[in-house]
Amino acid sequence: MVQIGFVLFPNVTQLDFTGPLQVLHRLPDSQVHIISHTLEPVPSDCGLSLVPTMTFEDCPPLDLICVPGGFGVEQAMVDPVLIGFLKQQAKTARYITSVCTGAFVLGAAGLLKGIKATTHWAYHALLADVGAIPTQGRVVRDGPIFTGGGVTAGIDFALTIVAEIASQATAQSIQLAIEYDPAPPFVGGSPQTALEPILGRISSFYAKRNLDFGPAVIKAFERFGA
Amino acid sequence: MVQIGFVLFPNVTQLDFTGPLQVLHRLPDSQVHIISHTLEPVPSDCGLSLVPTMTFEDCPPLDLICVPGGFGVEQAMVDPVLIGFLKQQAKTARYITSVCTGAFVLGAAGLLKGIKATTHWAYHALLADVGAIPTQGRVVRDGPIFTGGGVTAGIDFALTIVAEIASQATAQSIQLAIEYDPAPPFVGGSPQTALEPILGRISSFYAKRNLDFGPAVIKAFERFGA
Repeated sequence: MVQIGFVLFPNVTQLDFTGPLQVLHRLPDSQVHIISHTLEPVPSDCGLSLVPTMTFEDCPPLDLICVPGGFGVEQAMVDPVLIGFLKQQAKTARYITSVCTGAFVLGAAGLLKGIKATTHWAYHALLADVGAIPTQGRVVRDGPIFTGGGVTAGIDFALTIVAEIASQATAQSIQLAIEYDPAPPFVGGSPQTALEPILGRISSFYAKRNLDFGPAVIKAFERFGA
Repeated sequence: MVQIGFVLFPNVTQLDFTGPLQVLHRLPDSQVHIISHTLEPVPSDCGLSLVPTMTFEDCPPLDLICVPGGFGVEQAMVDPVLIGFLKQQAKTARYITSVCTGAFVLGAAGLLKGIKATTHWAYHALLADVGAIPTQGRVVRDGPIFTGGGVTAGIDFALTIVAEIASQATAQSIQLAIEYDPAPPFVGGSPQTALEPILGRISSFYAKRNLDFGPAVIKAFERFGA
């Protein structure tokens, strides 16, 4: 039985977690744990609260750990219990993974040192600050470490993991069952394809945010992961 | 303020709901309600329970109603309170929508009669049994009624809605922020592209299920919607 654990924290971007959950829940012979400090609902970024099924304290050894991202990463990466949990689990897990800015939580725990990794496009360069090798890709694998890009990349990421653990045919069966035949109604889901005025506005939003987030990443890494 | 409401019921396919939620929560000047009988967590299909923010009883008039799908549809479409809620809200809502097999809940409420609609590929033909006109498409619009295909179609569906209510630039901004530049790792997310043995196995699973679900749809429609 493959033990899969998603780590939840307040203000998580819920689709970073719920996309991969929908896919990985269908991995044969697996059990999924949704893990946080307590079993109390955890507020996400969308007004939706998510109910954990397991605490950090009681969680069994995991084969696969997944950390989603979101604005709450800034607090999660300095949560000593959460970081301690990741460090401990990482010693025996077969796969250590993240989606979106969840990479910085892995990074703060010192789990990305010398590792090729990706994250949300707007934060990509900051991966170097946790000792990772920023690498372009919707899903990047470096040995046991799989990282996914921003938010919706979590679905591609999870299908990749299913193919790794089970088989490509299993991944394709899940893909067909969830009708994953995406047809974005507009162009522009990446900085390479976005229209200039839209990219300018959104980049500027994230650049402002990174004035705080960038130094916070360095500090968290120095505290826990360096 | 655009009032948006998602209807939750036990055994909902959580990504049918959480995909559109991630997108529609970013619609400017809007408020999202997550609606069920009570505020108690609602179990989804993935071991994840989802916390409502509003009850059927207390819900204000909605501008946009969205019904997700899942195996729980079989019970939801014969839930008199839920169906009564939809019929009442539909009288004044600007947009009545569904993702995946949520279409059959709208259908049971008599809201798809003579309407072009889509649903999950494996259930598509059954749309005729609620008086709808089964129409191929990842997102199908017929006047105020938007229906999305299976599970992951909800993301394309929600971006289409954002463009309708706000603007294409707003949809594109959200698309860039959630890095919606999908790259399925394998082919086969639709019956048209799936490999034969995989399509055969998955189709056979759903065909067996439809032996019960098909008659249940007709019965629900005759009771509430005909």
